Amino acid sequence: MARVQRRNMAHVQGLRCRECGREYEIAPVYTCEWCFGPLEVTYDYAAVAAAVSREQIAAGPASIWRYADLLPVDRGHAVDLGAGFTPLVRADRLAAALGLGEVWVKNDTLNPTNSFKDRVASVALSKALEFGFKTAACASTGNLANSVAAHAARAGLRSFVFIPSNLERAKVVTTAVYGGNVVAIEGNYDDVNRLCAELAGTYRWAFVNVNVRPFYAEGSKTLAYETAEQLGWETPDHVVVPVASGSLLTKIRKGFDELHQVGLLDHAPNVRVSGAQALGCSPVATAWREGSDTIRPVKPDTIAKSLAIGNPADGYFALDAVRQTEGGLAAVSDGEVVEGIRLLARTEGIFAETAGGVTVASLKRLADEGVVTPDERVVLYITGLGLKTLDAVEAEPTATIRPTIDAFHEAFDPDHIDEE
Amino acid sequence: MARVQRRNMAHVQGLRCRECGREYEIAPVYTCEWCFGPLEVTYDYAAVAAAVSREQIAAGPASIWRYADLLPVDRGHAVDLGAGFTPLVRADRLAAALGLGEVWVKNDTLNPTNSFKDRVASVALSKALEFGFKTAACASTGNLANSVAAHAARAGLRSFVFIPSNLERAKVVTTAVYGGNVVAIEGNYDDVNRLCAELAGTYRWAFVNVNVRPFYAEGSKTLAYETAEQLGWETPDHVVVPVASGSLLTKIRKGFDELHQVGLLDHAPNVRVSGAQALGCSPVATAWREGSDTIRPVKPDTIAKSLAIGNPADGYFALDAVRQTEGGLAAVSDGEVVEGIRLLARTEGIFAETAGGVTVASLKRLADEGVVTPDERVVLYITGLGLKTLDAVEAEPTATIRPTIDAFHEAFDPDHIDEE
Repeated sequence: MARVQRRNMAHVQGLRCRECGREYEIAPVYTCEWCFGPLEVTYDYAAVAAAVSREQIAAGPASIWRYADLLPVDRGHAVDLGAGFTPLVRADRLAAALGLGEVWVKNDTLNPTNSFKDRVASVALSKALEFGFKTAACASTGNLANSVAAHAARAGLRSFVFIPSNLERAKVVTTAVYGGNVVAIEGNYDDVNRLCAELAGTYRWAFVNVNVRPFYAEGSKTLAYETAEQLGWETPDHVVVPVASGSLLTKIRKGFDELHQVGLLDHAPNVRVSGAQALGCSPVATAWREGSDTIRPVKPDTIAKSLAIGNPADGYFALDAVRQTEGGLAAVSDGEVVEGIRLLARTEGIFAETAGGVTVASLKRLADEGVVTPDERVVLYITGLGLKTLDAVEAEPTATIRPTIDAFHEAFDPDHIDEE
Repeated sequence: MARVQRRNMAHVQGLRCRECGREYEIAPVYTCEWCFGPLEVTYDYAAVAAAVSREQIAAGPASIWRYADLLPVDRGHAVDLGAGFTPLVRADRLAAALGLGEVWVKNDTLNPTNSFKDRVASVALSKALEFGFKTAACASTGNLANSVAAHAARAGLRSFVFIPSNLERAKVVTTAVYGGNVVAIEGNYDDVNRLCAELAGTYRWAFVNVNVRPFYAEGSKTLAYETAEQLGWETPDHVVVPVASGSLLTKIRKGFDELHQVGLLDHAPNVRVSGAQALGCSPVATAWREGSDTIRPVKPDTIAKSLAIGNPADGYFALDAVRQTEGGLAAVSDGEVVEGIRLLARTEGIFAETAGGVTVASLKRLADEGVVTPDERVVLYITGLGLKTLDAVEAEPTATIRPTIDAFHEAFDPDHIDEE
């Protein structure tokens, strides 16, 4: 085991500024001292290439840790509740409804706390253990709060999670139940995030999306790895990804490229990357539409609270990835979000939270506009479960009756019952 | 593919009455014409043994369909949303809290609709397609309703699901959102079930827990298969299973035995099987305590609605399995149920619905009574997600504050913050 740990750790080289390229040692830091640019983990891809194979990955655990050689933490420290390796299901009925060809849904509702945030929290808390932190903390729109609280409980770490006070009740309960500290902030996510940046300077805590952010963010790459593995080590032609901070979109793109770099793909990937936002919080889509490089912060107002980041940290990089890959960006109304939730549930049996509704509605918009085309193999990232935003959809029983056949036939005409 | 389908179908021999042993052809029937006993699927285990291997299973899909050779439907018809192959996580912190040794949690909250019912619904709806049914139906305490509605949507089948009208709102929304018919019945589950038995005689529908029940129930065996595979093809010493109809408990036991019968285990399994019930609906535990063979129906009154079957169809068989394996049965109060939910969340980061609280609290009770012992390898089956029964637990933010460090320090004394 010790040998495996050392070998795995050796793949991580250090941290590098995404703006100016300056390099740093591995440590819980996240900003370049010179230009204040964000830091990113670098790997020795030649060493990874020598260590990994399709067979070795297939023999690994059914979680993100099957890709440990491409993650910035050794597997010996893994805080593993089973995040990742979620189903990729072919969605022919959804494709038909949208006039598209081959559509797949990556169903990330099936993570330990029912959102893709378990991927990043699992990596971040594992790294926090490795760094010797005793407390995990985060700013969250809800899903990350759930995940950090659950993974901290599992690891025996203390936790402090900071959320906007207007969150859905489900996201509060599913955070507080794990026994850590939940602090509700009178403000929106951007206010919460600002406070957390200050607190990260005050307390020696592992703030997963502040001082541990470079490691945390790497967890999202696993969505690309799994997609390719589940497609038989091929890549899709087009992916549609919800945009909050923008980090998920850029990391999914990076993940496909890395797979080729370490020899797991036969061909260089050529994946068009499109982004999905809610109209009530669409700073990246707005910059896209206006042809601008500047992401102007907005004040969020949408039912898609998990995407409600008005000042997205990686917005520029997401925009850049969309441009480079010739994807697109859509911004959809709250009404379209609800319709998107219903369409996915009705056609494929998958119940997504509002963010998923944004993604489905954006796919519809991009298909209508001809940005996504019927000849493409499309993958849709559904990142959170509908049970977390239950109040967004109205769904009542068809009928409420006494327990008799007569009562049933009063409610459903027996002559037409097989048409119901 | 056609060849595989034929080969797989050949493993199913027919149906046999569990009371009198009379045999029947494969058909959508569930009761013996002679003695009214329940029918069960029979297999050609020699043919299964020749077809399966640990390697072949490991190379299969990450769902219950990796065990297709041991299921009563050919994989070509599989309605597969990704049910099964859920994490089995070692629960050292829970074990320590209960004074036990090696405890594992089978986390079946991570199924497509977040309960183990996806295992049975996936098999039942696949068989319904094979039989040529156009409509899927069920009586449900909620979880099966979710699952049948979702799998029917995925398969493009019509659906009629019947639920008690007092169900948790989450379970109603997560059924209705898939677009089928949801009929709320003014009565308890036993009333719903009686009506469905009548309707099954009237309409040519695949009633998953009536006329398709023998096939449906086989889905539960996969919990035993996965447990053994995930323990490196070994069996636990003791399992604790929630009891509603009793079918889950008996099928888990059957699953372990079958694995040995087809050569996948090196040794004959010796698994003690214990059952968990809520005090407000504990007919099987009552018969156990009284040393009786008769399960007296009760009128359920408990927050654990998914276990609230007062007249359990397989109660006798569950009782028999517990006796034969020298397990035990516990009945726990609603207060203990809530404590059980909190204990599992706090120690392992897993948020279970009330049924899971019943199971954890029952394990605690059985450990206190010395029925489950510290030298045993124990597996706990957690069958549904806490988001479905959110109102059962109170969980509020620790504090609600303005977005400033001063406000944070008003709520959390900086001198004691690292003790929070």
